[in-house]
Order: sequence, then structure tokens, then C-alpha cells
Amino acid sequence: MPSGTKSPSKKAGSNGKADLNGSLNGYADAMKSKLGKSVYYFGKNKTEGNARMKLVLGGKGANLADMTSIGLPVPPGFTITTDTCAAYYKAGKRLPHGLMNEVQKNIAQLEKDTGKKFGDAANPLLLSVRSGAAVSMPGMMDTILNLGLTDAAAEGLAVATGSRRFAFDAYRRLINMFGDVVMGVDHEHFEKEFDKIKLRYNAKLDTDVPTEGIVQLCEAYKAVYRRYVGEDFPQNTFKQLELAIEAVFKSWHSERAIVYRRINSISGLNGTAVTVQSMVFGNMGDDSGTGVAFTRNPSTGDNIFYGEFLINAQGEDVVAGIRTPKPVAEMSKWNKKAYDQLIKIKNTLEKHYKEMQDIEFTIERGTLYMLQTRNGKRTGFAAVKIACDMVGEKLIDEKTALVRIPAGDLTQLLLPSFDPSKRKSATVIAKGLPASPGAAVGKPAFTADEAVKRARAGEKVILVRKETSPEDVEGMHLAAGILTSTGGMTSHAAVVARGWGKCCIAGAGEIHIDAGKGQFTVRGKTFGRDHVISIDGSTGEVIEGELPTVEAKLSGDFAKIMRWADKYRTLGVRTNADTPADAQRGRDFGAAGIGLCRTEHMFFEGDRIKSMRKMILAETKEAREKALNELLPYQRDDFVGIFTAMKGLPVTIRLIDPPLHEFLPHDDKSQQEMARALNLSIEKIKQRVSQLHEMNPMLGHRGCRLCVTYPEILKMQVTAITEATIECLMGKIKVSPEIMIPLVGTKRELAVLREEVEKTIAEVKLAQDYKPRLDIKIGTMIEVPRAALTADEIAQNADFFSFGTNDLTQMTFGFSRDDINSFLPDYLNRELLPVDPFQSLDQGGVGQLVRMGTEKGRATRPDLKVGICGEHGGDPSSVHFCHKVGLDYVSCSPFRVPIARLAAAQAAIMAAK
Amino acid sequence: MPSGTKSPSKKAGSNGKADLNGSLNGYADAMKSKLGKSVYYFGKNKTEGNARMKLVLGGKGANLADMTSIGLPVPPGFTITTDTCAAYYKAGKRLPHGLMNEVQKNIAQLEKDTGKKFGDAANPLLLSVRSGAAVSMPGMMDTILNLGLTDAAAEGLAVATGSRRFAFDAYRRLINMFGDVVMGVDHEHFEKEFDKIKLRYNAKLDTDVPTEGIVQLCEAYKAVYRRYVGEDFPQNTFKQLELAIEAVFKSWHSERAIVYRRINSISGLNGTAVTVQSMVFGNMGDDSGTGVAFTRNPSTGDNIFYGEFLINAQGEDVVAGIRTPKPVAEMSKWNKKAYDQLIKIKNTLEKHYKEMQDIEFTIERGTLYMLQTRNGKRTGFAAVKIACDMVGEKLIDEKTALVRIPAGDLTQLLLPSFDPSKRKSATVIAKGLPASPGAAVGKPAFTADEAVKRARAGEKVILVRKETSPEDVEGMHLAAGILTSTGGMTSHAAVVARGWGKCCIAGAGEIHIDAGKGQFTVRGKTFGRDHVISIDGSTGEVIEGELPTVEAKLSGDFAKIMRWADKYRTLGVRTNADTPADAQRGRDFGAAGIGLCRTEHMFFEGDRIKSMRKMILAETKEAREKALNELLPYQRDDFVGIFTAMKGLPVTIRLIDPPLHEFLPHDDKSQQEMARALNLSIEKIKQRVSQLHEMNPMLGHRGCRLCVTYPEILKMQVTAITEATIECLMGKIKVSPEIMIPLVGTKRELAVLREEVEKTIAEVKLAQDYKPRLDIKIGTMIEVPRAALTADEIAQNADFFSFGTNDLTQMTFGFSRDDINSFLPDYLNRELLPVDPFQSLDQGGVGQLVRMGTEKGRATRPDLKVGICGEHGGDPSSVHFCHKVGLDYVSCSPFRVPIARLAAAQAAIMAAK
Repeated sequence: MPSGTKSPSKKAGSNGKADLNGSLNGYADAMKSKLGKSVYYFGKNKTEGNARMKLVLGGKGANLADMTSIGLPVPPGFTITTDTCAAYYKAGKRLPHGLMNEVQKNIAQLEKDTGKKFGDAANPLLLSVRSGAAVSMPGMMDTILNLGLTDAAAEGLAVATGSRRFAFDAYRRLINMFGDVVMGVDHEHFEKEFDKIKLRYNAKLDTDVPTEGIVQLCEAYKAVYRRYVGEDFPQNTFKQLELAIEAVFKSWHSERAIVYRRINSISGLNGTAVTVQSMVFGNMGDDSGTGVAFTRNPSTGDNIFYGEFLINAQGEDVVAGIRTPKPVAEMSKWNKKAYDQLIKIKNTLEKHYKEMQDIEFTIERGTLYMLQTRNGKRTGFAAVKIACDMVGEKLIDEKTALVRIPAGDLTQLLLPSFDPSKRKSATVIAKGLPASPGAAVGKPAFTADEAVKRARAGEKVILVRKETSPEDVEGMHLAAGILTSTGGMTSHAAVVARGWGKCCIAGAGEIHIDAGKGQFTVRGKTFGRDHVISIDGSTGEVIEGELPTVEAKLSGDFAKIMRWADKYRTLGVRTNADTPADAQRGRDFGAAGIGLCRTEHMFFEGDRIKSMRKMILAETKEAREKALNELLPYQRDDFVGIFTAMKGLPVTIRLIDPPLHEFLPHDDKSQQEMARALNLSIEKIKQRVSQLHEMNPMLGHRGCRLCVTYPEILKMQVTAITEATIECLMGKIKVSPEIMIPLVGTKRELAVLREEVEKTIAEVKLAQDYKPRLDIKIGTMIEVPRAALTADEIAQNADFFSFGTNDLTQMTFGFSRDDINSFLPDYLNRELLPVDPFQSLDQGGVGQLVRMGTEKGRATRPDLKVGICGEHGGDPSSVHFCHKVGLDYVSCSPFRVPIARLAAAQAAIMAAK
Repeated sequence: MPSGTKSPSKKAGSNGKADLNGSLNGYADAMKSKLGKSVYYFGKNKTEGNARMKLVLGGKGANLADMTSIGLPVPPGFTITTDTCAAYYKAGKRLPHGLMNEVQKNIAQLEKDTGKKFGDAANPLLLSVRSGAAVSMPGMMDTILNLGLTDAAAEGLAVATGSRRFAFDAYRRLINMFGDVVMGVDHEHFEKEFDKIKLRYNAKLDTDVPTEGIVQLCEAYKAVYRRYVGEDFPQNTFKQLELAIEAVFKSWHSERAIVYRRINSISGLNGTAVTVQSMVFGNMGDDSGTGVAFTRNPSTGDNIFYGEFLINAQGEDVVAGIRTPKPVAEMSKWNKKAYDQLIKIKNTLEKHYKEMQDIEFTIERGTLYMLQTRNGKRTGFAAVKIACDMVGEKLIDEKTALVRIPAGDLTQLLLPSFDPSKRKSATVIAKGLPASPGAAVGKPAFTADEAVKRARAGEKVILVRKETSPEDVEGMHLAAGILTSTGGMTSHAAVVARGWGKCCIAGAGEIHIDAGKGQFTVRGKTFGRDHVISIDGSTGEVIEGELPTVEAKLSGDFAKIMRWADKYRTLGVRTNADTPADAQRGRDFGAAGIGLCRTEHMFFEGDRIKSMRKMILAETKEAREKALNELLPYQRDDFVGIFTAMKGLPVTIRLIDPPLHEFLPHDDKSQQEMARALNLSIEKIKQRVSQLHEMNPMLGHRGCRLCVTYPEILKMQVTAITEATIECLMGKIKVSPEIMIPLVGTKRELAVLREEVEKTIAEVKLAQDYKPRLDIKIGTMIEVPRAALTADEIAQNADFFSFGTNDLTQMTFGFSRDDINSFLPDYLNRELLPVDPFQSLDQGGVGQLVRMGTEKGRATRPDLKVGICGEHGGDPSSVHFCHKVGLDYVSCSPFRVPIARLAAAQAAIMAAK
């Protein structure tokens, strides 16, 4: 390392980081030297990036470069890479050495292409500075517009544009935005000055203030800036630019950005890119305007150009939802030429990207400019329809269609919708824009904070707001649905809700909200925090009271996608089901068997719990057996029901798993009732409850450990299964039972219990004089780390393995699911974990055990059937992992079966690539 | 498989075992065909076994063959292999096909060698049938003597020996033993008949009964047999033999054998062998006798021939402790020739085996026979002395000496002994034989059951019995010490106690025990269940009241062994210590540093807990910091103390680990006191306690998770460590602190916390203006399975790893240490686990993670220092494993340091072989 680079490392040492073990010594230098090119230019004469560089340039930067390349009218600019953002943080929030030199060179190119000059008084080059990560995070990051204006340049712009009002309006916007976003001056301070000016000129709207008022406003804003920042608003435009770039980098770790990433499980990104682009203005008068549009309807998927625009406005005004914009179709009346050009561009973009696009455009004095294109966010409904349509249009093939639908978004198609038969009698109190489909019922909450608090307390709430802003995301996420009174289909509320598949109605203008009073009024009626409303995101109707819902069905495009998925996937999909009803639902959604049938639920219904408690309180083996015999017929009938529903498909039955104390009541009153019912003293019951109490029940006397100490429980359950099997077979119903022994950790455990299962089956056959061979498989759950580690030994006595990844995750991490909430939020916020490992399988850790268990098990027994049950079986990324590891099937709750089928197909298609 | 062999498999099917998957089909046949040779003969003309075949022939059978080979006078016989026992069980308790044919052939050889005939009336061949596993289990298994007698043979024997009394006495012993051991007839029923006969002949002792009485007794015994068995005593001697062999096999799974194996951690054995040997009689009159002896003193290790004999008695009489025998040295007065021959044999055996031997012999009418030799059980004291002496005698080398001392037995040398300075004033109430050294204090318990019950309730008891029997082992094990009033140095109590290193006095004849009244009387004084007594197993003194003890020291032979151990071992040994006193003790025992210094104990002393509670109840970060600042000086002083004691040796300090609720009181009264002390409402305290309550605290908010949510705790602890380090260094005291972050599961956790530790160290240096480089290592505990699985990633931020095998065992098995007792006994009894995995590392499962963590960690960082802390660090078999895996050190409690040093040397020596 050259000696000249040592000084930053010394500097780092002085703030106490680099003194030990030298891990940070010279880090910033190391990063810089690795960084290489930090800035990519795009413009008519020279374009350095392309659409494939999203990880480096962010989605926005990459696509601007791409659009420039294919000849679309894009204002020129350049993008600073996401690596630079990472380097900024790793160097302790300092811009990497040499970056501003590179920026300067690109500004020079930009001056050449635009004919304007950055910082020039006569013909100033104005810039927008925007953020853009590899994954789109709409509205999450800060933007600065009109950068490059100074006192002198404002005057110059006034001359150049012929509009002094426009020039100083742009200047006051810059001072406001820069003060707020870059320097952290509260927006309110600026607003107060504006209010004073309006009062002075007796102006109602901003636009009513005359030019001289706006010029005065700039002075007032500069005074605000000076007061709160402690220095003058910078008249050096490079200083402006440097601070703005830093502000974008900083916004990457703003609280709202962190929350957004957490909610959307976005992790592993480098940081944000910064796109610096020459400004065009939609607010230069009535021949100017700005708009956003989707090439198809993002809510329904219909192939109709779909968007909104505002005349004489800057881009942010559309998205912010402050003014309600006009549908894009009306643009042809206003500027036919620009509209036709936009339609042509729309078609070009869809053909180019073979994907539905979300675009932003501006018309400056009649000329169309494209400011952004990206793959449009859409609802699950739209994703399915667009994918099917594009296959029909021969734009894409089936595999591409399958890969493109976010499997998790199918949830929306599986959610209940309002019962059409009950619709007639419903009272519709208002109608808004159907911004995101779905059926939500709840009570109004009037701020995001209120929604968070009430939702966490278990209430179902509808967030009712004039408009939403990025600060509201947590409340939006926790609300059952969102209803806004202003804003269009592309407003913040609409875009974010669609991204999540959450029901949303936007711009329901008849509704008048009084958040202070906690109520809204519509057509003379007032609704407070206690009034239940129903909102239909597919029709835009707001309904009084609770409307009943009906369950979803697989039909139309959805069914088509499922057929394609089955064609390409190799991984089996089963369902978790404990009742005949669940079993049937799983089959309806395409499950090829039951991967987990929990038997403990069968002990709770009706009178059964009484027998179960008798068993637990019994003092001798005989008394336990007597109580168990009372349970036997119930269990047998349960199994007959489930076998019948599954018509010969395999049914994996897990023997009793939870610790016995879960079956006993823990409060005084219930214990007294139990004492009376069982004719026992309350002391005896309390004594047994306390005897069964465990410090760590998760790691206690449960699973197969119960069958080791109480073999009679195993005997009863296996008897019930075998009798049910014989009963079905005698009635010509096919059955494939699989007995699963839970929580096995050693070879001997399974060997001994398997022997007892086999013995019981043989005894039942003998007692029933049933001669033919019974095909009952016996296997185990791999859910204790030791079982995965010794899977080669355990497989000697197993016909199948099923990974119980819930418990395996608990034990591999040492996380109790019941207790994790005391620290999980901190872990997610500080990115100590990329996602909640109980929602998505931890492939790096727990996944190693799944892979090891599978490989070792199959080394002993190549025909070993291996599956996974538990929450992860319905999580798309976990399904991908299961495919990669070569499992035979995943099993998940009935409603997640279609998601697993699609995810399995995607995994197969992507693996083949 | 030939069709003729199918019938057993069908038979198996009918009892319900072989119908599924065919796992048991034809198993018995398969075993037989694998078995090969089942019986090994030993005799003058033909000897098939040898000393190396202990696994196959059991220790007894192998050594009888060996002694025969080297020309010692051993009555001929044969041994049935341990494999046969296994086959017996695997075939569902049926003797393998063809076994009795092989036995018959060997009986024929025996008849040839002895000139007698099995089942013959005139000159009957009599046999002993004994058990013998590969590992000695003294008194645990059943033995049958005099087998081969029938009504007719008894008459024949009377003629052949010239003693009708002897012949019928032998016969009645056979009927009694056979009835009891083989057919399960209660011994009491026979005893009653004997009492009747004694009454009839007005006889006090058995020996007073005349011959005709003994003959009548045989008839009475046969009647008892008929009544309880339901058939006549078998007059077919082959039937006798077959049933006896089966009885020995069955005794392998008797409750007392299982308990013995569990207590002694014996597992993985095939079963027991059966040795059938021609009888010799020590009870043929006053020229006959029997004895047992050790070639050296098994209690002290002194090189003195050491044993006991009884004239006119059978071997069992010596071991049973019913008559107190004479010292073996007195034998020369009785039969000089036999004594001289015995001394010669003793010397031959020690030279042959190069080990101290435990022998059994019988003199039949003046002629000496050897009945057994085996390596003698000895105390830890004796093991050390004998090993050192034999090196001195050039019988063995240092390595052999080291390998021969059971490392765990060193515990005995490390236990406290009675304070010699307090001895003078002690009241000695009785003196017995110093059967097993040690100092025990407790209250008398008069039955084994009573000892078990009271010991489990936490009381320290001395088991006081006339004699002990194999049924008493559990009570003996749980008692602090054992005191018997009859029996010699080789009695059951003495042998078993020495095996465990438990303090024991045998044959204290002055003591008169009245178990019914729960008291004993000695020299006119009566001692009940509430009188504390002290027993000194090294002197045989029984002392009134509690005598104070002093701690053990490393000196003499013990120190020599430790020096040798250090010479050969490569594994480091550290100690776990939380206080300067423990640190000093660890150093005294040879620890090369502290491997685990727990800091949470430091929060409990005196006023500190108040500050700790303030911290936990604080509502803001500032209030927490304030409370922590109160703790800081205490922690710093603790560290200064420990660093000073360790004089520059490394000290691994673990940051706070337990969940916060452990620091709060959970009962009403303490909570109220706390409320008063902290000036808070009781509700507030109850609320915080309930808020901190966790379902599974083991898997909850603890370890580094606390430092993630409360970084100020980490900051306080690291500040204390750094300030203590600087303070010591300024005072010219060398220090090597190592900061250990517990419960890490992901790379990010350690990276983020390491950064905070480094930052804090730098801040302290800055605040104290301390310039020189501080060498403080930062590492982590590997105790979460995920940490071992991702050790390659975690090592990127770790200077060292220390395996926390306690928690790693909990999570790998899914066993809570606090709750395991509800099922562990069943698991050990059913051999579902070979040992308690918290006592000895589970090498097959948890060990895989230790190996993986080490290998992966070193792949990233070849110089990574890796150790183990926790209970396993002092367990010899775990230490062997750690050596094999290549760890740098083990760390254990101070008292186990010498054990770990020896075990480490043994591991190195055995690995080199």
C-alpha cells in the first residue's frame, strides 16, 4: 500500500475502531481500490449502463440507461453505483475518495449534451437527484429536485424560461426540499413561511401567490435555512450536489427504509444507487404536465393502458396523492401528439421488456420525456392474468409465465371474497377507486400509529386516511384494509397496497375524515372507531357493517397456471390436515396426500379430553390403559374419516407429540371442574400439574419420549390406525397410512418404538383375524439436530423421513418460538437476521441439517422417501430449497398448497436453466 | 435359505413380530449360522481360549483358559460365549439350536479329564455354573454350584467321598440354589425348612445338624421345590445344566445387573458368558478351605499379599461376608505347602499379567486349585501407588502406568480427608477394617431403601448394615459412606465400595445393629437416625459427631503421575473459575489458564444485586446506564483479582449469559422487599417479572441476545475488563484477557458485537489516555448448533472458539437439563442412551458438531484457538475425544483439572499406538 494512503487509517484509529486486530485499518482505501468505476453515464451520445446492471445501478439507473439505448426520449444523466453506497457506510459514512472527481467529469459531459452549465447564472443546468436500489422501494427514499439553483441562477432561469414566477417557484422548492431532506430542517418551518405569504397576499391556493410573493418566499426560506442549519443555503452547486448524494446514501438506513425492507423481506442488498439527471419540468405552464402509467391494469391485469396525469405539475405531485389526477386516456384531448407518442413508447417498452411496465413521463412545453420505466408491481390477480395473457399473445412461453408470478402472491387469489348472494342487501355508503382487490372487514383507525396499536391488540382495523405517506407503512401493513379519500390508482396507498396484495380503495372523495375526532362522515352519516365497515378492493365499494365472505376456488387463469405448474414441477406437494374437512380442502387445492396429520387435536374434542385427563392422572399402567381404551374408538373413527377423504393417497400420521401438561387445565376454576368431573381431590390435580411442570417444555418430556415412558399410548394410537385401515380396506376404500414417530434423536429410540408399532399392528391383525399383508409405512420426523446428524443410523429403521423444520429451527438456532418476540424485531431491524427463520427456512444453517439428513439417510437407504412438514412447506423460497436438496415432497396448510405447487414448478424451471 | 429352516420364521410371525418388513424372519437361524463356535474347553490336555478373548469368553472364562495354559492347577471346564447370550435374547429368549450338542461334547471331554461321569450314580461329575461378562461385575450375576447331583448321585457321592453328610449337604445346597436362582422360588421357603430341622435336632448352627437331619432336609427341600415349581426337582442332569445356563443368560437382564451397569456406565456389551467347571470342594472337612486374595493391597496399593481364607467352607461364604475370614498370611500355619504354592502362583500371575491380580482358590483335602484370576479392582490411591511402584520395579513403563490409572478415580485423591489436627479430640466409638479410603460424614441409614430415600431428599447418610448384598447397590451408591459389622476386606461391601472409590469400613464387629428400631449400639452407647457419625475409610475408625476435613494436595506418587502426564499430553488443560479463590485452586491443580469465567455470579454478591435489579427495571437507556455504572467498579475489581491470581495466564471471560428474569425474585415476600428497597410499586415489579417470563428460557432472551437489545450491558462489562487490564498492566501484572461472546448463532451477531467490543476498548483507552497496544482477544462460545454448522463464517470474526457443550448438548438432543429426569432413567435402563449425555459427551451426535465446528473454523482461520468448557471438559472419555478432534485445550472445574491432565496424557499415548 502506498504510504500516501495511510492517513485515513490513522484517522479511523482515532475514533477508536482500527486499533485492535487491524480489521478496519485502511478499509476505505481497500474499498476504493476494489470499487473501480463508480459512475455510469447515459445520454444520446454515450450510454455506459444497461438493463442487466440493476444490482450495480439500481432498477431506475439501469432502465434509464436502457431506454436511452433504444432511442426513447430520456433526459441525460448519470448513476452512481450501489457499491459506492456500501463503501460510504463501510468507511464510517464518508464519500469514497475520488468520487466527486468522477462526478465532475460526468457533469461536464452532461453540460455538453444539454448545452447548459451547472452553476451558471445565465443558463443553469438543473438536476434531479434520486435514489434507486436493485429492488424497487417506491417512495421509501429521498429525492431532491431543481438542484443547481442559486440566487444568481434563479434570475438566469427567469430570463431563460421567460417566467420569473416559475424560476423562483423552482428555487423555493429546492430550498425547502434540500433543507428538509439533506439538512433535516422540519418541513413545518417552511410551511409556516408560506402561510404568512399567502396571508399577506390574501391567497387561498399556492398558485394564487403572485411572483413577487414567491421571490419573497425564497428569501424567507433562506432565512429559515440559516436559522436551523446555522449557515447559508449553499451557493456553490457542487457543494449542493455532494450533500445531496450523501443524503440519498443516508436515506438507505432511514427508519422507514429499514421497516419497508423488513416487511418485504428485502435483504442482502449493497445499498442504493444515486441517479443524477438533467431536469425537465412539467410545471412550466399549461402546455406542460406529468404522469405515471402502467402498460396494463395492475389491479386486474386487463390489457388496458392505465395511468394518470396532471397538467402543470411536477412528478411528485401525482404520486403524493395531494391532487386527484386525470385518467391518462384524457391526455389525447389535451396533447394528441404527445399521447400518440406515449402509446407508441408503451408498446415498444412491453415488447422490449416482455413485461408489464410502470412508467413516469413529463411533458415540458409540449415535448414528451420518459423519466422512468420498471416492471410494474401488480396484484396476485393481475400477475396471473398478465402471465396467461402474455402467453396467449406469444410474448412469453409457459415457463416464463410461471417464473414471473410471485408464488406468495397467490395468497390473494386464495383469500375469501364477499358473498355475491349477500350483496343485494348490503348498504354501500361510498365508492372509490378499486386500487387493490380483496375483501376486508374492520373498524376504522385514523392514524397509522392507532392502526398499529389496535391491530397488535388483536383488533381488525381499516386504516382510513386522506392520503398515506411512507411514514405510514407499518400501520398500512397491519391494517386489514386501506381506504383513502384522495389520491388515484397510482397514489402511495394504492401502489404499496397492491405490492402486498392488501385490499385498498383510493380516492373515495365523498368521505370526510376528522382524524382528531376519530370519525368520518359520508352522505350525512358518521362512522366512529366502533363502526364496522367492509371494503371491496375489487369494486371500490365501501359497505356499512360486516358482509359475509365465501371461499376461493381454483378456476380460470388460476387453474391454468396450476396445470402448467404441475407440468413442470418434480417436487410433490402434500397438505397438513388433522380433520376430514381439512383433508378435503387440501385435495381440492391439489395436494397429493397428507404430509402431517397431528393426532393430539383429536384428544381435545368433546368428552375425549376427560378420558385423556383420566389417563394422565392414572397411577398405574392398567388405569392408563383403561382410559386410553375410551379414546380408542374416537381416534379410529377420526382416521376412517381422513382415510376416506384422501381416497388412497398417503396419509402421514404423527403419534402424540405435546407434553402431557398441555392437556391439563392450569387455572383454579378449570381444575376444580376437572376434580369434580373425575371425582378426584383438587390437591391431587394440582400435584400432578406441578409434577408435569417443566422449565423448558420444548426440550422436555414430549414426542417419542412419551411413548418410551408410556408405551400404552403408542399402543392405543397404533391400534386405532390399524383398525381404521382394516375397516376401510374391508369397505373397499384404499388407504396408505404412514406412521410417523416424532422427536427421535437416536437410532435406538426409533428401533425400539418401531418394534412396538410392528408388534401392535400384528396383534390387531391377529385379533381381527385379518390375513392379507398390510402396507403401513413406519418412519420418523427429523426435527432434533441430532437426528439429522445421525440420519444414516436412524434411516436403518425408517421407511421415510419428514423434516419438522419448526422444531429443527428452534433447536438449531436455540430460539423458542414462544419467546422470540422479545428480540426478533431488533434482530430484523439490525439485519442480524435476513428474515424470521420460522417463516422462511434458514438455508445456511438449518438447511445444512436438512441436506445432511437427506444425504445421510439416502446413503443408508437409497429409496428413503423424504419430505418436509411445518410452516416452511408453503414458503416459496423454502420450496425452492427443498427442490434443490432433492426432497420428494413438501407439505403445507391447505391454503398454501397452490403456492407450493407454483414454487415447485419455478424451482424446477430455474434449476434447468 | 433351505425350506427346512422356514418354520421358526413362521413361528415368529404368529407372535406378531415377523409379519412386517420381515426384519425378524429367520433371525435365530441367521444368528446360529453366524455364531460358529459357541463353546471353548479348558483343561490339561486341550485349551481353546486365551486371555485376549475376554469379549467372547468373559473375563472369568478367558483367564481360566489362560491360567490352564501356563500350567496352574485349574479344575477343567468350558465356557459358552457371550455371543450365545446375545443370540439367546435376539431369538426371543431361546437357546440357539445345536448349543446343547456342543455342550454335550464338552461334557464328554470333561468326563475324560476328571475320570468322573456326569449324572452317574457311582462317581458323579459335579459342576459349577457361573456368569462372566467381558467387564467384571462382582456379585451381580447368579451362580449355581454342585450341579449334577440327583437322589442317586448324592448316595454315590457319599460313598465316593466317605462323607454322607458332605454329600447330602451338597445336595441340599444345590436344590436350594437351583430352586432360588433358576426357578425363582423364594429363598425364605427353604430357610423355614432348615429352621424346622434345626428345631427338631435342637441345633444352634447349621453345622450342628446331624447327617440324618441333612438327609431329611433334602427331602423337605424337594417338597418345597415341587410345591412352588409345580414339578419335581429334575433328576436328569442335562436338564439341570440346560436350565442353569438359561438362568445365567437371564440374569444378564435382571434389575440389579441393569442398575449396576447404569451406575458404572457399562454399555455396548454382548451379554454374559457361562463358565461350566468341574467342582472342587473347600468344605470337605478341616483339611479343606477356600479363599480370595489380591496380589497387592487394593486399598492402599502397598506391595503386600493381601487376602482372606476360611477353613471348611465353599467360596461363596468368603465373599458373602457371613463369616469373618482369617488373613491369608495365617494360612502358612495351617498348610505350609499349599501356602508356599499360592505365593509362587501369585508371583507367576503378576509377572504374567504385569498387573495386580484378584484371585480365588480352593484347597480340597490339602490340594490347591485356582478358580479365578482377574485384574484386581482398587481404589484411586492404590491405582496411583501400584502404577508408580510397578514402574519402579521395571514391570511396566511410564506410559503403561499412565494408561492404567482410571482417570476418573483420581477424584478420590482429590477429596478432602479428616483434619489431622482435629483428630486428637475426636471420640472413636469403634474400629473396623479400612476397606475403602475416604472421609465420610452423615447420619446412619439402616436399609438400602432408606438410604436411597433420604439421600434423594438431600440428606447425607452413612449406610450401616450387618453385611451388604447385590440388591443394596443403589443405596450404597447414594450413601456418603458404608459401614458393615461383619465381612472382611473382600466382602461385597468392600469390593463394591472400592470400585467406586467410596469410603467404606467393613467388619466393625463391636457394632450391634437393630435395623427394626433404626439404631445401632456400640460400647453401651446407642446411635439413631439423627446422630451424626464420621467414618475414616483409611484407618477404619468410626467417630462420633462431625470431624472437620482438609483439602487434598498434589504430592508424592500423585505428583509423579501428574509430571508424567504433562510429559506425554499435547492437549492443554484450563479451569473454570469465577473468583480469585477458584482461580488460585485451578492453578494449584495445574491449570494453564481460565477457560470459562462466568460474569453473572458477579451480579449477585451483596449490594450488587440491587443495582442489577435497578438496571432491569429501568425504563430508559439512560436509567439502565446509570444502574450499570454502579456495577462497573465491582466488576472491575473482580477482574483485577482474577487476573492477579492467574499471573498472565489467559483468562476467558464470558459476557452476561442468563436471561434477566433470573436476577429478579419470584416469590411475593422477596418482591415486596425489592419494591421497598428500590422505592417502586409491587405492581411494577410483578409486571416486569411477568413480562420477562418465558416459556422456554433456555431458548429465550439470553446470551448475546441481551447485548443486542441492551448494548449498554456489553459496554459496562467490556469497560470493566479493559479498565482492569490497564490497571494490572500499570501495576506490572501480566494479563491475557479473552472476551467471549456467548450464544452466537450467526456471523452477523458476532461481527456486530465484536465491533461494539472493539469500540468500547478503544474508548476506554482514550479516556484513560493509555497508548500501548492492548492484547485483548475476542472470540465466541460455540453452543448453538447453528454456530457449529456455520463455523467457517463465524470464525471470520473470532480469535478463538470455546465449545459450550452443556448447551450444545441440550439443543442437539432437544433435552432440557432441568427437565430430563422425567425420562432419563427410562432411557438409561432401556439402553436408549449409553450414558447421561450431560456427563459424558455424546461423541456420535454432539461430537459431530464439535468436530465440524473445529474443522470449519480452522478452514477459515488456521490459527484459531479452540477449546471446550462445561462439564465435559473434566470427563475422561470426553477429554479423549477432544484430543482426537485436535482441540487446543479443555477447561473444567478446579478439582477435575488433574483428571483432565491424566486423561489427556492417556489420549495422546493411546493415539500414538
